[in-house]
Amino acid sequence: MKYVYNFKDGNKDMRSLLGGKGANLAEMTHLGLPVPKGFTITTEACFSYYESAGKIKAEIVSEILQNITQLELDTQKTFGHGPRPLLISVRSGSPISMPGMMDTVLNLGMNNEVAAALITQTQNPRFVYDTYRRFIMMYADVVKGYKRTVFENRLEEYKQSKNVTKDTELDAQDLKNLTEDYLRLYEKMNQQPFPMDPTRQLLETVSAVFRSWNNERAIYYRKINHIKENLGTAVNVQEMVYGNIGENSGTGVAFTRNPSTGEKGLFGEYLMNAQGEDVVAGIRTPYPIENLKIQMPQIYQEFLNYATLLEDHYRDMQDMEFTIEQGRLYMLQTRNGKRTPEASLKIAVDMTKEGHMTKKEAIMKMSPEDLENILHPTFSSEISHRPIITGLAASPGVAVGHIYFHAKDVIEAKRQGINAILVRMETSPEDIEGMNHAVGILTSRGGMTSHAAVVARGMGRCCISGCENIIIDEQKKEIKLPNGSVLKEGDSLSLDGSKGYVYLGELPRKEAKETNELKEFLSWTDEIKSIEVRANADTCEEANLAKNLGAKGIGLCRTEHMFFNQKRILPFRKMILSQTVQERIKYLNELLPFQREDFYQLFRIMSPNPIVIRYLDPPLHEFLPKTQEEKKELARELNISIEEIETRINTLKEINPMMGHRGCRLAITYPEIAVMQTKAIIEAVILLMQENKTITPEIMIPLTGDKKEFEYVKKIIDDTANKIMKDHDVTINYQVGTMIEIPRACVLADKIAESAEFFSFGTNDLTQLTYGFSRDDANKFLPEYQKKGILTEDPFTTLDKDGVGSLIKVAIDIAKSVRPNISLGICGEHAGNPDSIKLCDELGIKYVSCSPYRIPIAKLVSAQNAINKNQI
Amino acid sequence: MKYVYNFKDGNKDMRSLLGGKGANLAEMTHLGLPVPKGFTITTEACFSYYESAGKIKAEIVSEILQNITQLELDTQKTFGHGPRPLLISVRSGSPISMPGMMDTVLNLGMNNEVAAALITQTQNPRFVYDTYRRFIMMYADVVKGYKRTVFENRLEEYKQSKNVTKDTELDAQDLKNLTEDYLRLYEKMNQQPFPMDPTRQLLETVSAVFRSWNNERAIYYRKINHIKENLGTAVNVQEMVYGNIGENSGTGVAFTRNPSTGEKGLFGEYLMNAQGEDVVAGIRTPYPIENLKIQMPQIYQEFLNYATLLEDHYRDMQDMEFTIEQGRLYMLQTRNGKRTPEASLKIAVDMTKEGHMTKKEAIMKMSPEDLENILHPTFSSEISHRPIITGLAASPGVAVGHIYFHAKDVIEAKRQGINAILVRMETSPEDIEGMNHAVGILTSRGGMTSHAAVVARGMGRCCISGCENIIIDEQKKEIKLPNGSVLKEGDSLSLDGSKGYVYLGELPRKEAKETNELKEFLSWTDEIKSIEVRANADTCEEANLAKNLGAKGIGLCRTEHMFFNQKRILPFRKMILSQTVQERIKYLNELLPFQREDFYQLFRIMSPNPIVIRYLDPPLHEFLPKTQEEKKELARELNISIEEIETRINTLKEINPMMGHRGCRLAITYPEIAVMQTKAIIEAVILLMQENKTITPEIMIPLTGDKKEFEYVKKIIDDTANKIMKDHDVTINYQVGTMIEIPRACVLADKIAESAEFFSFGTNDLTQLTYGFSRDDANKFLPEYQKKGILTEDPFTTLDKDGVGSLIKVAIDIAKSVRPNISLGICGEHAGNPDSIKLCDELGIKYVSCSPYRIPIAKLVSAQNAINKNQI
Repeated sequence: MKYVYNFKDGNKDMRSLLGGKGANLAEMTHLGLPVPKGFTITTEACFSYYESAGKIKAEIVSEILQNITQLELDTQKTFGHGPRPLLISVRSGSPISMPGMMDTVLNLGMNNEVAAALITQTQNPRFVYDTYRRFIMMYADVVKGYKRTVFENRLEEYKQSKNVTKDTELDAQDLKNLTEDYLRLYEKMNQQPFPMDPTRQLLETVSAVFRSWNNERAIYYRKINHIKENLGTAVNVQEMVYGNIGENSGTGVAFTRNPSTGEKGLFGEYLMNAQGEDVVAGIRTPYPIENLKIQMPQIYQEFLNYATLLEDHYRDMQDMEFTIEQGRLYMLQTRNGKRTPEASLKIAVDMTKEGHMTKKEAIMKMSPEDLENILHPTFSSEISHRPIITGLAASPGVAVGHIYFHAKDVIEAKRQGINAILVRMETSPEDIEGMNHAVGILTSRGGMTSHAAVVARGMGRCCISGCENIIIDEQKKEIKLPNGSVLKEGDSLSLDGSKGYVYLGELPRKEAKETNELKEFLSWTDEIKSIEVRANADTCEEANLAKNLGAKGIGLCRTEHMFFNQKRILPFRKMILSQTVQERIKYLNELLPFQREDFYQLFRIMSPNPIVIRYLDPPLHEFLPKTQEEKKELARELNISIEEIETRINTLKEINPMMGHRGCRLAITYPEIAVMQTKAIIEAVILLMQENKTITPEIMIPLTGDKKEFEYVKKIIDDTANKIMKDHDVTINYQVGTMIEIPRACVLADKIAESAEFFSFGTNDLTQLTYGFSRDDANKFLPEYQKKGILTEDPFTTLDKDGVGSLIKVAIDIAKSVRPNISLGICGEHAGNPDSIKLCDELGIKYVSCSPYRIPIAKLVSAQNAINKNQI
Repeated sequence: MKYVYNFKDGNKDMRSLLGGKGANLAEMTHLGLPVPKGFTITTEACFSYYESAGKIKAEIVSEILQNITQLELDTQKTFGHGPRPLLISVRSGSPISMPGMMDTVLNLGMNNEVAAALITQTQNPRFVYDTYRRFIMMYADVVKGYKRTVFENRLEEYKQSKNVTKDTELDAQDLKNLTEDYLRLYEKMNQQPFPMDPTRQLLETVSAVFRSWNNERAIYYRKINHIKENLGTAVNVQEMVYGNIGENSGTGVAFTRNPSTGEKGLFGEYLMNAQGEDVVAGIRTPYPIENLKIQMPQIYQEFLNYATLLEDHYRDMQDMEFTIEQGRLYMLQTRNGKRTPEASLKIAVDMTKEGHMTKKEAIMKMSPEDLENILHPTFSSEISHRPIITGLAASPGVAVGHIYFHAKDVIEAKRQGINAILVRMETSPEDIEGMNHAVGILTSRGGMTSHAAVVARGMGRCCISGCENIIIDEQKKEIKLPNGSVLKEGDSLSLDGSKGYVYLGELPRKEAKETNELKEFLSWTDEIKSIEVRANADTCEEANLAKNLGAKGIGLCRTEHMFFNQKRILPFRKMILSQTVQERIKYLNELLPFQREDFYQLFRIMSPNPIVIRYLDPPLHEFLPKTQEEKKELARELNISIEEIETRINTLKEINPMMGHRGCRLAITYPEIAVMQTKAIIEAVILLMQENKTITPEIMIPLTGDKKEFEYVKKIIDDTANKIMKDHDVTINYQVGTMIEIPRACVLADKIAESAEFFSFGTNDLTQLTYGFSRDDANKFLPEYQKKGILTEDPFTTLDKDGVGSLIKVAIDIAKSVRPNISLGICGEHAGNPDSIKLCDELGIKYVSCSPYRIPIAKLVSAQNAINKNQI
């Protein structure tokens, strides 16, 4: 096995062996760029070091020394003595970049003899002693673990004794004195003198760099960045070049494009007569890279050429380091540059249009997380605040504002120009106006499907729900935090609805904006997509938004949300509390015009794309009044006593509403509701037809668990539709399908598919029932499950492949045996989650339906899947 | 096709063609018994009648007439004229007995000419006119639908005019006058004279009998007795014999054994000089059959011989009808006799011991419903009351008593010698003593797994839970019924906990008793059983009862029930409300001695049979106090404010507790609970070992959905057990398995079986989650589902084969691929349901575990399954 590669022998595809830095240095060497000469000790040598209990094996030592000899030949320099001494850098470099986490030693090879020879050679004793002093400090730090501050303090003391403030005010003698002081200090701490043998310096340093793979900060970095533990680090040994050798020397870093905006053109900075660490340290203010064009036009042009060459070669924006030594340019490093989400998008789009990459490559380069960040406002990524509370990430985006506990107070605050956050134990339809005026919503109860979460997502308003560990007192207008402290009306909070984090005070916000690049990029995903993307939309606003964001139809229109509105909630409540069928029909008739108009408007927006309309689904008591005033109003309206209202409300209460009287169970016990909803749909299509538009509504019966249930409701729909069509003498195409969201429906999907024309998998409920996890309550134990490693992902966020996925697979397999072309979709939170979309695609799902703001992400993932599939 | 069978041509196995009566008449004819001659028109002729829109086809008419001709030859009589006229009976007879539901006409063939000839022949004009008069009335009723009362009223008027009260006081002339009156009355109603042509009489009557298959009462009878609609009825045409022809004539009915007690020996009654309908009508008091031994010793002996012959032949207790005509015995009917459940058991056991049937046949003859009736007190089956309320059949048996709304009032009533029924919205641990003093329990909330239901089943106390449509006001001490009326403290109710019916007032109770026959019979089931039967038992009382009833171990010991007790509930509540692990451990240590002692006592009772111990399962808030006083007590005990108590209770509340923080989720978030329970078990085994007894506890982790969950808890158990075993220097065998009650566990059962040593299917929860039906709430829609035919069975009573069953099948198949000998059980309500036990047996389940009182039924069904399997 070969453990050491000369830069001439490697290339960019050897990252896992040579590390990222080593592979790129080799690649640049091949491209003919002026790279200081050197070699890379492989990650295999690192493994060998650990396997040999912290010893470099003899054969590896021998390879390293052979490569030093070769380096002496290549550079025409000598290691450890004059006349032209060879000084080298020894740098770590793992397969995945971990900037600053591991160790580096510069100027290695220096000793008293070398110093003397270098003075002779350069006639610059100040530079030589400065180099020597820096080497001692670095070596002591990296190899022996002595803190750099011990040496830096000596430097400070020396400057104070000379009454100067800047390093540059010290002369050669000063630095010589300091070097000697450092050597004494080292010997005092180490009980042995500083090693003058360059080979020993080298081998000790290589060992130290291997060890630095497992230092605390590197382990922590790998953990938080999900980097594998078994990669190891390579070690790069390279001839030193010096930017601090005089006024025609310098050093700098530059990107080929602006990493914040993605703008094309060199973006970077440099310092003359300085070493790399001086740029990083920020003691002197560097110049912008454009300045170099004036100061050293030839060097600038040469660097620009290399930058262009590298970007073309790597087909990605590059982050480069360079040094100018006595008027000669050296390239020290290149790598794909880190960038903001916005820049990531712009660069991918621009480089594609410039012909540097294909659309497919651009799509693969974009991460779903970056796209989500582009679509929603976020907090600046540099913030170091820690959240004071964690709740459910109910609706994405961020909000900064002052807290208010009642909808009317939010409205008043807004009137006064105050950004208000509505804080409630839970919200109800009466709060809608307040929610609309608020910048964000925070609740202590209720899950991802609570009123607050659902309405907020529809409004695109940031929302955190289910903060179980705070106590909200709406009367006292205060929040009691877990640590006992109390927040009062008007206090400031910052909410991150994408993460479920609540911060104290006001955090800086970064706004989202829709750019032309975004539109163009998304149009490419459409060309390549595998799975289709529809939207969950219940209102015209949502439908328009979804259409704008490119939804190919509505995959889930939740009709109950059409009643979450102050004008309609009253007849709806009367309907729920009806004691007779006649009474119920009376109030349903009051609701019919609203539903018909809603459907008509939705149809106009989406026509001719399909709309899946789900019939009334949630437990009815969700709509009932909670406050005494609301109950009084209802009692007055129904002309019954408030006691009677309480009694009727009590009868509707359920112990486990999620598994209670809801879904198609409502249509079976109260067929008149399904009749009204069918009338509204069919009559709306008739209105649409008068405008020469057309649509095929897909009527979806929720919560089916048995073929007979489905058929019972389908018959109501067909009978009602047939009657209206006959009365109007028209024929309207519509489909009747069902949501598959109950485990029993999965195992009996073949029977159900005999009658159902389409399926949409309701993965929210299916996950709840498959796991037996109530989404509203699982917060009591899921965090502990994740902490203890029992669950790695929240199954309500990432679709559970093993359990829920295998039930879906069964359902699809058996359903297709009966109805081979059955249309299959999924709706629910998972439809916007990248891993879940991938799983759905594998399962053979035709479309995913997600909230409008997640459409772009779903399209991106869909396109990425398509590309991956074709590559396999 | 042959539509008419002479009795000589049929046999008992031709029930579906000849009906039960016809097949048995043919069989008796073959056996050489004196059966009046005749023939049977088949059920096929009945179908043909309906298919021909109410006409008897010509070929069938022709067959009937040929058989009449043959009957004339066989009887040496002539149809419609003298000298020896043939009179016949025409009776319905369907394949399944529907006594009294369809029509019969006797004395057919009578007309003026026949009457004259008969007078000549019998010299008994009174008998002849009585016969004639009866015929007219029956014919008018059956064929024309004229009410019998119209004719009977004429008889009454006539008797009044003659100033007599008894029919027997009327002479020949009186009856002749009445006959003529009847003929005029018929003609007046019918607009046409009474038909004198006997063939026309016959064919009209046969048609009428066919029609009676679909009369209202027959349809209703079939519906409530689950008899198929497509069976049809045969028609039996038979020579009349007369028990009312003089003092050496008579008629009677008798069973070969007592149908109430099962006692061996003729049991019946008879009347001399009477027709069958006189016995039924109850106008004259019949003699007991023993009397015949004295009155007509030869006839008695002859009948006894026939009875013995028939019972031997049919190998079952027979119900026979006979007539004595002028000193000659005729057998009119035999069939397997209806009997009470107690008689059913005794007859099966006795006949087996007498060698008339095998044990297997005896087992097959016993129905699970009858066995259930034997084990619990019931209401007399003749009651015609209708329930005023229907709830869940939460705990079987019946209760009659006065209602009280508070546990303390029940206790006081009991002290005064009053049978009290405890009525509560729901019960809590504070009510235990009151429940124990009550004869029955009625609640308006909560399902089959509510506190009331669970505790009542354990106590063997009758209970109806979840009567959702009544309103219980505990303060006012009243129940508001759905019809608006109100019951107050002290009012009487009768509860049938086996059916969930509540009756107003006091119904007569029939007590259950354990007999030697029962024990013997159950011992036979043990010899034949396929699936094993264990008990659900949480207390020593239940364990002893289970052992008595023959349970082979405990299949489910619900440890939480051990805390439903006033002494333990307080430390348990403190444990739940603990804020720190230290605090929780402190209260767990207080509970440890109780649990250890409980386990020790259970182990002593069951040793060496296995006990499956389920770790703490229900949501913790179920144990929390509800009343203000209890909360105050707890606040005092914990030395915190009542506000703080409220707050802590609120934090524990869940929206869907059934899918919330329960089962193994408790052991994962609070491992210290599992530690305490393990200590209690292992230390209890050590105590047991000191008595040289042994047991292998099967520790069951509830609500597992993932292998990692299981392994996390198993590790706690193993670590705790190992430490104790090491400390005591002993080795104890125990197993760790899991309940499979979550759909995800079914589809991942192979993974879970890698670690779990046994499975017990918790079909209650599995049904809830597979259907998405909350057991506590499904009552809101399940009745409607059953009414509309969407569900034929309540899936919480009868295990759903298609859905839940197929998930169980998947689980078993994949689990066995990993652990071929894995022990498989089921626990839950289904374990006591016959159809479900059968399904479990088919699925390869090794044992069912049910509440103690259901053990005998489970054993019976298990044995029946084994027999059925071997027959196939």
